Amino acid sequence: MPVATIKYYIRSGLLPRGRATAPNQARYDESHLARLRLIRSLREVADLPVATIAEVVAVLDRAEDQPDPGHVAAALRTLDDDIAGASPEARAVVDRLLARVGWEVDPDAPGYRAMAAAITAIDLHWPGAYSLEGLERYAVIAAELAEQEIPDDWDPVGTGQEAVAYAVLGTILFEPVIVALRRLAHADRHRRLTAASRAERPSVS
Amino acid sequence: MPVATIKYYIRSGLLPRGRATAPNQARYDESHLARLRLIRSLREVADLPVATIAEVVAVLDRAEDQPDPGHVAAALRTLDDDIAGASPEARAVVDRLLARVGWEVDPDAPGYRAMAAAITAIDLHWPGAYSLEGLERYAVIAAELAEQEIPDDWDPVGTGQEAVAYAVLGTILFEPVIVALRRLAHADRHRRLTAASRAERPSVS
Repeated sequence: MPVATIKYYIRSGLLPRGRATAPNQARYDESHLARLRLIRSLREVADLPVATIAEVVAVLDRAEDQPDPGHVAAALRTLDDDIAGASPEARAVVDRLLARVGWEVDPDAPGYRAMAAAITAIDLHWPGAYSLEGLERYAVIAAELAEQEIPDDWDPVGTGQEAVAYAVLGTILFEPVIVALRRLAHADRHRRLTAASRAERPSVS
Repeated sequence: MPVATIKYYIRSGLLPRGRATAPNQARYDESHLARLRLIRSLREVADLPVATIAEVVAVLDRAEDQPDPGHVAAALRTLDDDIAGASPEARAVVDRLLARVGWEVDPDAPGYRAMAAAITAIDLHWPGAYSLEGLERYAVIAAELAEQEIPDDWDPVGTGQEAVAYAVLGTILFEPVIVALRRLAHADRHRRLTAASRAERPSVS
């Protein structure tokens, strides 16, 4: 990583200064390196603006030795910050959906703003493309995903800082996996259904 | 929409010229308007570069009266173009995964490049964070999603152009819904598990 980038991160308050060992030298330890790697991931994978990364870093600085679900939620919530606005109508749709599936999450929960923004975009760009029943079927599948990713005997390991970093990385690295697999699953399904409908049609020969 | 934006789209070859009705006036019909709406969605929702939108538009121009799965696939494939590179190792992982789940999709299929890029990013930013078994569990859930979204009696309605436009819009508008629901499902699951572990712990009073 170029020195200029490290200096930029220090100036932006994302990275603490190293321990000065000479007028033009500084020493960086393991924790610096871990922080640097996380910042790079947030920039390169999620393309997050520096202001959002600064919020994640602020949560990391508050994290203690023991994992704290509040800190994890606060860090994940910042990922929603980069998301376009949500209409009051879309928020009402999200509230109705959450009530239907029995999820007890409030408007501060990670994903709430992202979900309301996604609904707002559909309302704007393809009105009528969803129903509450359809969204509920999506939610049931998302719950299945979450049960698989966070097993019943889930117990955060490592320090509070590590718990925050892993939660953030797990979110930004695996979301692209899930949407890419959906694209591939659609491709396979279209192929199957097209092949089936061809097989049904009587041959012209 | 500002006239300057429409002129920019015409100059970029995204939108055909209107029918000139006077030296400084042109008339635009329904098909122009539909095209303009799609371009706006691709820009605003998916933040796609103009070059990628031009490829989608080129597919639309080839589309005929009857829906054609080849055109739909070609349009969806362009959505992968905007995605970072994929390593040969990651492509090998995707191939092994596809063989395991029995999906017959080739490296040209929509989502293949996106999936390989997502795996490349994990290899780089969190080595060891996935296993082939874990990816297979994700794939099973993605297949469930696809079965729900594309029912067995699926039959494309409308013209070939409409089929292409709906496939592209359905992809870019519903991917954010799915990832947002995953974030919310995680939040609900963390809350449940935290509440359960608190309930298990003996009270100190």
